[in-house]
This record gives sequence, C-alpha cells and structure tokens, in this order.
Amino acid sequence: MEAPVPTPSFARRPVIAIVGAGAIGAYYGGRLAQHGQDVHFLLRSDYDQVREHGWHIASHAGDFSLSPQQLQVYSDPAVMPPADVVIVTLKTTANHRLPELVAPLLHPTSLILTLQNGLGNEQILADAFGGARVYGGLAFICCNRLPGGQIHHSAHGLIRLGQYVPHQPDYSRWLAGLFNQSQVPCQAIENLELGRWEKLVWNVPFNGLGAALDLTTDRLLASPAGEKLVRQLMQEVIDAAGALNLPLPVAMIDQQIEKTRQMAAYRTSMQVDRQLGRPMEIEAILAAPARAAAAAKAATPGLDYLVELVRTIDGQ
Amino acid sequence: MEAPVPTPSFARRPVIAIVGAGAIGAYYGGRLAQHGQDVHFLLRSDYDQVREHGWHIASHAGDFSLSPQQLQVYSDPAVMPPADVVIVTLKTTANHRLPELVAPLLHPTSLILTLQNGLGNEQILADAFGGARVYGGLAFICCNRLPGGQIHHSAHGLIRLGQYVPHQPDYSRWLAGLFNQSQVPCQAIENLELGRWEKLVWNVPFNGLGAALDLTTDRLLASPAGEKLVRQLMQEVIDAAGALNLPLPVAMIDQQIEKTRQMAAYRTSMQVDRQLGRPMEIEAILAAPARAAAAAKAATPGLDYLVELVRTIDGQ
Repeated sequence: MEAPVPTPSFARRPVIAIVGAGAIGAYYGGRLAQHGQDVHFLLRSDYDQVREHGWHIASHAGDFSLSPQQLQVYSDPAVMPPADVVIVTLKTTANHRLPELVAPLLHPTSLILTLQNGLGNEQILADAFGGARVYGGLAFICCNRLPGGQIHHSAHGLIRLGQYVPHQPDYSRWLAGLFNQSQVPCQAIENLELGRWEKLVWNVPFNGLGAALDLTTDRLLASPAGEKLVRQLMQEVIDAAGALNLPLPVAMIDQQIEKTRQMAAYRTSMQVDRQLGRPMEIEAILAAPARAAAAAKAATPGLDYLVELVRTIDGQ
Repeated sequence: MEAPVPTPSFARRPVIAIVGAGAIGAYYGGRLAQHGQDVHFLLRSDYDQVREHGWHIASHAGDFSLSPQQLQVYSDPAVMPPADVVIVTLKTTANHRLPELVAPLLHPTSLILTLQNGLGNEQILADAFGGARVYGGLAFICCNRLPGGQIHHSAHGLIRLGQYVPHQPDYSRWLAGLFNQSQVPCQAIENLELGRWEKLVWNVPFNGLGAALDLTTDRLLASPAGEKLVRQLMQEVIDAAGALNLPLPVAMIDQQIEKTRQMAAYRTSMQVDRQLGRPMEIEAILAAPARAAAAAKAATPGLDYLVELVRTIDGQ
C-alpha cells in the first residue's frame, strides 16, 4: 500500500503562476489551464500577442488552443495574485532577474518549482526564498515557440520532479499529480540532483557541441570523430557525477547514443539560440556543471574546452 | 657582395606548369603569364569557363585580365608539355591525386614548388619524385575565386620559399626571381620548415577555430574566451615547433593578435570551405601538425580537440 500523498493546505484549487512563458511555460501552463487549473502567466516579449490572440499549441499529444478569454496573462509580476505554486520556466540566461520576478508572487507557504535547464537554478531560488519550498523538475520535451502565438510540441513531454532539500512534508507527489491530472506525465523522484546530472549526460554533448559546431544531433553522430567527442563528454559528466556521489551507469552512454540515433535530426535549444543570435544557456548547461566537477576534483577537459568555445560564439 | 644566383640550365624562358589553378594558382600563375612567362595551367572545375572567357583578376596590386588567347589551359596533364618548373597550388584535400597529376609534367631536371597550405605536401612530392627537386613556398595572400572566372585578390601576396632538403645547387633565389620579376614579392628562405611552423602559428587558430565555430577572425578575437583559445593554440604550435628544434619567439603571439585585430573581418579558407560544404584542409593545416607535435612529445590538447571538432563537421 502506498503512503498517502502529503497535500498542502491550499490544495483545493491552487493559484498557479508561470514565470517566463516561452515554449515550455506555454505548453505546461497551457495544459494545466486546459484542464481547469487557475493559471496566471507572466510574459515578456509575447505579452501583447498572447493577450490579443491567445495560444495555439500543436502537440503530438493533441492540439489545443487557449483564447484570450481563457487566459490570465500579465507583463508585471506586481499585479499578479499571490501564487500557491510558482512554476519557473524562464530561460536561465535571465536568471539574474529571477528573485525580482518571483518575489511579488509569494505568500508564506508558496511552493516554487523550477523546470529550467541545467544546474544552479534551485540554488538561486533557495538563496532568495529559502530552500524548503524549492522543487526542481526535469522537463523531457521537444517544444518550440513559433511566431504568432504558435507553440509546437513535437515530442516527449515527461516531467520528473523532486525536492531541492529533502525534508518532510514532501509535496513532490502532489505537484506531480497536478501535471498528471492535466495530460502531462510526471514522476516524483527521490534524488533531484541525480536526475539533473543524468539529464546533463545528454544535454552537455548535444547542446554544447550542437551550439559550438552548429550541427544537429544526427550530424554529431554521423562521423567517428563526432561520436567520439559525444562519448567523451558523456563519460566526463558521468565521472563528475560519480565524484559528487551521484552514481550513473556507464551503460547509459550506449543507450543515449542509440536513442538519439533513432530521433530525427534535432536542433537543441542552444543550437537554435545560436542560429537566432540569442543568448545561449551556457552557464546552466555547461559552465555550472564544469565548476561543480572541478570542485569535486573531477577532470572534465572536453567540457572545459567546450565552455570556452561557446563563450567565444556568445562573445563573452 | 652577394653570391651569384645558381641558375638552372633551362633558365632562359622556363616552361612553367600550374597544377590546380584555383584562386592562388590563377593569381600567381596569372602574374607570371602577364609578365611574359610561358605558363601552362592545369584546371579542373573551371576549365570550360576559363578556356572560353579567361580570367579577370581584381587585385589590390593592380587589376589585370588574361584572355583565352593569352592563356594555355588544360584539363589533362598528359597533353601538357614537360615543365621546367611545376608549381603546385592544388587544394591539399586532393593530395591523393598529386603524384598522378604531376608525373606527366616532369623531365629529369624539373623543379617542383608547392605553394599549398600546411604540412606534409613536400613529403608527398619527395616520396614520389625525389626530395632534391622539391621546393616549398608559403603564400601570404588573401585571394578568393568568384563565379565566372573572377579572382579577387584582396590583400597581401608575399611568397617565402625554400628547399625541402637543403643542398647545393639551391635554386630558391632563382625561383624567387621569377616571381619578383612578375610583380609578386618573393623571398628565398633558409629554413622552410621553420617558415611553415611560423605560418601555422596563425593558421591553426584562425583556420581551425574559424571553421569549427563558423566565426570570422574579428569575432574570434572579440571576446576574452576567444582570445584565450587563440593564444593557447598559438602557444601549442610554438611549443611543438620548439620540440622540433624550430625555435619561434613567444612574442609573435602578441604581434599576430595585434595584426589580426587590425584586419577587417576575415573568413579563413577553412571557414569558407565549411560554409560552402566543401572539404576542409584539416589534414594539412591541423592534423599533420598535431601528429608532428605528438611525435616530438609536445602536448597539443587544444589542437587535438580542434582536429576532432572539424572532422565532426566534415563527417570524418
């Protein structure tokens, strides 16, 4: 028999805020709103467009639209209602703004769930608002924003989430339930940090090399040289995780390469950002892991070099 | 008083063959032909175009045209006359064809001068035809081929050439004279290998990183990360040369970076090749130097990584 799900006191129909509604925020927040949750979206560049025309979400799990009448959108967090659950989907390159964006949304028992990429996001939120309320989620999803309020969700969609600082009560399963009731598969996990590093095994080589070389996933695996670089980086990430007491099986290298070969040519988010001249998530996906590895005395020469390569492209 | 210039017996008006007349071959061979030398061009992709319309060369040293009537062009070396001087300007990615292309052009005392990029070209010629007749030249030139028989020579033009195997007679000064009499500044040098490595100090970082990251020279130097990568690679090349008993001054790093900053944004040949989907000169400019360094026990971790990066782009 499974233990009962700890449920926060505000849980009947929580107020949910989505901070930074790009593709990921629009999709996940959109699913929650579609299924009757009380969702408030904080937008920046798309605010006028979405307020006037809403979103149309083309999803391999079923298309849906949200009209302006169905949406609660804002451009200023100061005018939003206090939220029981703040879901952060801001691009990590804007993390310097995270405390000022989230602060107006919090009441004393608000939970904060970051679905952002890479390492370091929970720490920023914990430093600003206390670690006990912070949850992190790994979003396994291929989702892009197109012009005109169009969102394209092409594959996957699973979220795995857990507490940043393990303690009781743990509302992970309750949070997972919100998503599962809204057509978003979601698992609560025991060890968020392990999950983050597991995801980095894929993200470091494919986002990093994809952006540095401007190559899609299939091109990176099309040559012996490319496969060797990908494998070396995966091994470095696994070694670093091991040095951080987060054991990951070496067999996942073969599995991830095989799985990636079976995908269509895929442009990772960092490659897309590079092509569009937008800031890339270098810090969260590459530099923070490299620093964590160095602090644990794990050598990551390939990753270190990659950080310098993408910083060169970014003009840093 | 300077020593007399050793002059080969055929030297009155030598027959000159240009093997692989892309931009470099067209420009230098064109200057020789413009100034009355007997030049025979071996072409491949541009043969029909040049045979019908000739070349127009827009040069910062003075524009000139060569009409079909002024040009001796061929698509097959078997029908060319034996040459006293064979000048090789073939792209190094076609070096596997070098022996078959050059063999029909030689008589017993023909000289061969390769103006190709990087390392290893003289060795291929020496293996096939004997080292005593082989000369190597460093072409410091910015020159591109445009559609329709147009050649654009935008900057520089100096050739520095010397014997592959130092011995007497040394016809380097005589060869240099051919160029100097044809509006091409040319210096005879004592130590070709030293010159080749000196040129690699620039070519390795700017061709290698430029191709890997698809960035022009100015972008590579626009960020601290990029300048650091460039400096590290230059230091690796200097260290490798030192291990090969070819001492190069570390001060040239600052000088070359300063000089490159003063240039306009420049796309190196490897970046151009990458953008056009053509084979890149990975072997001559990057891989051969990396192997030479390894053989001399010099560590070149950045260069080694760069080789794998550009091989990934090339699909090797």
